[in-house]
Amino acid sequence: MGNEFRLSDLAARIGAVVVGEGDVVVSGIAPIEEAGPGQVTFLANPKYLRFAKDSSASAIIAREPVPGAQAAFLVSDNPYYAFACAVETFHPPAPLAPGISDRAAVDPSSRLGTDVTVSPFVAIEEGAEVGDRTVLFPGVCVGKGVRIGPDCLVYPNVVLYHGVKVGARVILHAGCVIGSDGFGFVPTAEGFRKIPQVGTVEIEDDVEIGANTTIDRATLGVTRIRRGTKLDNLVQVAHNVVIGSGTAIAAQAGIAGSTRIGSRVMIGGQAGIAGHLEVEDGMMLGAKCGVPDSLSASVSRVWSGIPAMPHPTWLRMSILLPKLPELFRRVKRLEEGKKARGGK
Amino acid sequence: MGNEFRLSDLAARIGAVVVGEGDVVVSGIAPIEEAGPGQVTFLANPKYLRFAKDSSASAIIAREPVPGAQAAFLVSDNPYYAFACAVETFHPPAPLAPGISDRAAVDPSSRLGTDVTVSPFVAIEEGAEVGDRTVLFPGVCVGKGVRIGPDCLVYPNVVLYHGVKVGARVILHAGCVIGSDGFGFVPTAEGFRKIPQVGTVEIEDDVEIGANTTIDRATLGVTRIRRGTKLDNLVQVAHNVVIGSGTAIAAQAGIAGSTRIGSRVMIGGQAGIAGHLEVEDGMMLGAKCGVPDSLSASVSRVWSGIPAMPHPTWLRMSILLPKLPELFRRVKRLEEGKKARGGK
Amino acid sequence: MGNEFRLSDLAARIGAVVVGEGDVVVSGIAPIEEAGPGQVTFLANPKYLRFAKDSSASAIIAREPVPGAQAAFLVSDNPYYAFACAVETFHPPAPLAPGISDRAAVDPSSRLGTDVTVSPFVAIEEGAEVGDRTVLFPGVCVGKGVRIGPDCLVYPNVVLYHGVKVGARVILHAGCVIGSDGFGFVPTAEGFRKIPQVGTVEIEDDVEIGANTTIDRATLGVTRIRRGTKLDNLVQVAHNVVIGSGTAIAAQAGIAGSTRIGSRVMIGGQAGIAGHLEVEDGMMLGAKCGVPDSLSASVSRVWSGIPAMPHPTWLRMSILLPKLPELFRRVKRLEEGKKARGGK
Repeated sequence: MGNEFRLSDLAARIGAVVVGEGDVVVSGIAPIEEAGPGQVTFLANPKYLRFAKDSSASAIIAREPVPGAQAAFLVSDNPYYAFACAVETFHPPAPLAPGISDRAAVDPSSRLGTDVTVSPFVAIEEGAEVGDRTVLFPGVCVGKGVRIGPDCLVYPNVVLYHGVKVGARVILHAGCVIGSDGFGFVPTAEGFRKIPQVGTVEIEDDVEIGANTTIDRATLGVTRIRRGTKLDNLVQVAHNVVIGSGTAIAAQAGIAGSTRIGSRVMIGGQAGIAGHLEVEDGMMLGAKCGVPDSLSASVSRVWSGIPAMPHPTWLRMSILLPKLPELFRRVKRLEEGKKARGGK
Repeated sequence: MGNEFRLSDLAARIGAVVVGEGDVVVSGIAPIEEAGPGQVTFLANPKYLRFAKDSSASAIIAREPVPGAQAAFLVSDNPYYAFACAVETFHPPAPLAPGISDRAAVDPSSRLGTDVTVSPFVAIEEGAEVGDRTVLFPGVCVGKGVRIGPDCLVYPNVVLYHGVKVGARVILHAGCVIGSDGFGFVPTAEGFRKIPQVGTVEIEDDVEIGANTTIDRATLGVTRIRRGTKLDNLVQVAHNVVIGSGTAIAAQAGIAGSTRIGSRVMIGGQAGIAGHLEVEDGMMLGAKCGVPDSLSASVSRVWSGIPAMPHPTWLRMSILLPKLPELFRRVKRLEEGKKARGGK
Repeated sequence: MGNEFRLSDLAARIGAVVVGEGDVVVSGIAPIEEAGPGQVTFLANPKYLRFAKDSSASAIIAREPVPGAQAAFLVSDNPYYAFACAVETFHPPAPLAPGISDRAAVDPSSRLGTDVTVSPFVAIEEGAEVGDRTVLFPGVCVGKGVRIGPDCLVYPNVVLYHGVKVGARVILHAGCVIGSDGFGFVPTAEGFRKIPQVGTVEIEDDVEIGANTTIDRATLGVTRIRRGTKLDNLVQVAHNVVIGSGTAIAAQAGIAGSTRIGSRVMIGGQAGIAGHLEVEDGMMLGAKCGVPDSLSASVSRVWSGIPAMPHPTWLRMSILLPKLPELFRRVKRLEEGKKARGGK
């Protein structure tokens, strides 16, 4: 990539300390199984420790040197953070040439900031606003009255329904849909009657939304994703949900209507959370768990299973599940013993 | 929004009875936690009863007045229905200016009804038909020979593969895909051989399909969604599935190939239904349930769990699951007691 | 469809043997519940045996004749394969008229092979390459430096992020997203810091990817889908995952980061596989299963359940789950009996 650094200079940029030869020149970063001479790599997961020992990489970012390894070490209290900085050092974001494509459809009543990129086949409807330096990739649809803040990246074919608000430095990955109608119908003798969904969605600063994730507009009021929260791909957020700040939700999780998720919550992949609940700040919900009721952090901070139970209970329970057939046999044997005694 | 009504006039429009002062003027509708003077709100979920008592809203739509509340009440046997009417009264659909964008690509052999809206970057291919007053938002792709009925709303970036049929008053939310190939492959020694998927999809009148939901075309014949059925976001409907009328399927549920879902069925979020099954009319399948076999309504109308079991059984079972470790200990204690006795 | 064949000719084309009258002319293929005179049908699932007996179809493709049926039979050792051939015989792929739409946005630095189809509203960015005869449907976005091989079908609104590589004869269904950022963030006191995702995705020859499926680019290195693997709709493949060849993954399954799936693996719908695991060649994972750890084929080739256990164990366990309340009662009774004895 053309970026070369002395190890000591790289260490300074990423807040790490060199253990080993600081004058070595490194020119790239690679996964630990693949990194070779001239490259830096990263030891995160203890599963990969064996690779560290044999690595021919020039340097390894880690919490502490690995005895017996040949590589130099870039030691950091937060090696994952140092790694993130190193990746960015070797791969700075590509510069963009802003401009408005003449193949975009930009309503004259919309307002675009300075240095905005509007790619071909972007539709910007009546009264929409796009902040400075925001990039709209091809096929993005910005509905009527939408407001997008500055420095956002809106990847191809993202759809923002009318009236949705997006803060600053937000990243919306391809195909995500923000502001579709909530799923609200009244059953009647003649079939379902649609409840008009006239609320909106607000996505605060520094949020990132994964590819093909869907966030429904509120029936009334606002579906809200607070500052710094990260959603993975194919996540479903129903109408009137509020998600706090600094929360992370893994792929294919779903949150039903009107539920409130706190701040700094971690939600595993394919988890499902029923509607009208509260998940308190700082809780962790395991992958694939099903949450039918509000969870109290005072009972447990971590919950797993269907239905969700405190994680330590779930761990014990889940080890015993495969032994259930055996347990039935053991109880039957006890009953037979009892009968035998009773028959005496 | 500029819409103002005397409470008694609003009551007449939504089929409710005023309990309290009918001359009050109301100008908007808001969630119960937020509604203030001059606004109407709605009491649906008993969880929100506490808000009703303290609400400063001018009126509350409910089944019966809440003792001690200051607000007037709009009493209805079907308050949810009255609420839907009230939302629409305050938020009538925005009028659209129909027309064919010169930035759309409309094949000359296609036929468009009167007052159709064709937005920029819509592709309408050979021989397709679009009914009167139907709205195609930007980026919609209408494949060869597709037929869409009148009064439909097709939101941005919806894809209708060739030959698909859509009825009247259908709403297709952004990014949904109708008519992609079913997942059909024959394993051979050289790898998978694709089974051409040459059937189609038919979506009947008054259906609504959520954002990024996918409905595969039949291998042969028709994948069919009958009249008035509602699908939420990110739902998967496999090839040759038939879904009856007035059925509702929540987000991220999936239905495998050739399964037949009855009418007025309710399917919870993230539920999964195996292929080649039948789900009878009027059944309810809980969120996250897994259905490996056909279910009989004569055994239970409501099923939950993985694998699905009658809901009352599941409720009891799921309360006991976290006590499984304790049960193993209790059985061990019994066995030890027996051994002790046996040793005498 | 205009295609007519004598049964004996059709048999020759699909590698089957006629049992019955070979001179009958057939002109179409239909599902077994619907096929009538002049049509061929197919008996796959024993559930449909009753239809075979009463079918008025002219011929039935099957492993062996069904006693008592009136139809002729097209007997094949691999009837499913013969069926696939028959469908293609009656429904040959429609010929396409290649060409570059003047409503596409094709960067002059990109390179297009011969007989490529570039539909309206396709964006092909700087330095991208598209192989011979590949078809790009409307709204496809081909990012900077993307390479697509020959004979691919890329359905509407597919998004290929910059740098992604796609082999030959690959089918990408509508709305799938290839190369979005992996979900990688470092928690810090000030909130999440994004780890730049600077790797890529490589999709090898003969792969098929379902509608609205998402495949994230690697943090470093490559997320890879090997030759001949088939992914259904709404599947999530996280960063740095490697999936072997000839593997099939059903709808809504999800695979977390850095996990390696072997070749000829079958993964059921809505299955979830945690990160940093290995799934060996030839394994089968049941629908909705949850895999928290690496699975050994030497223990079992088929796994089901949450958490995943050997399939035979899961079958026994899952039959007993609904009997858990009864088991608790039985144990209680045993304990009471013991107490009674103890009290003597």
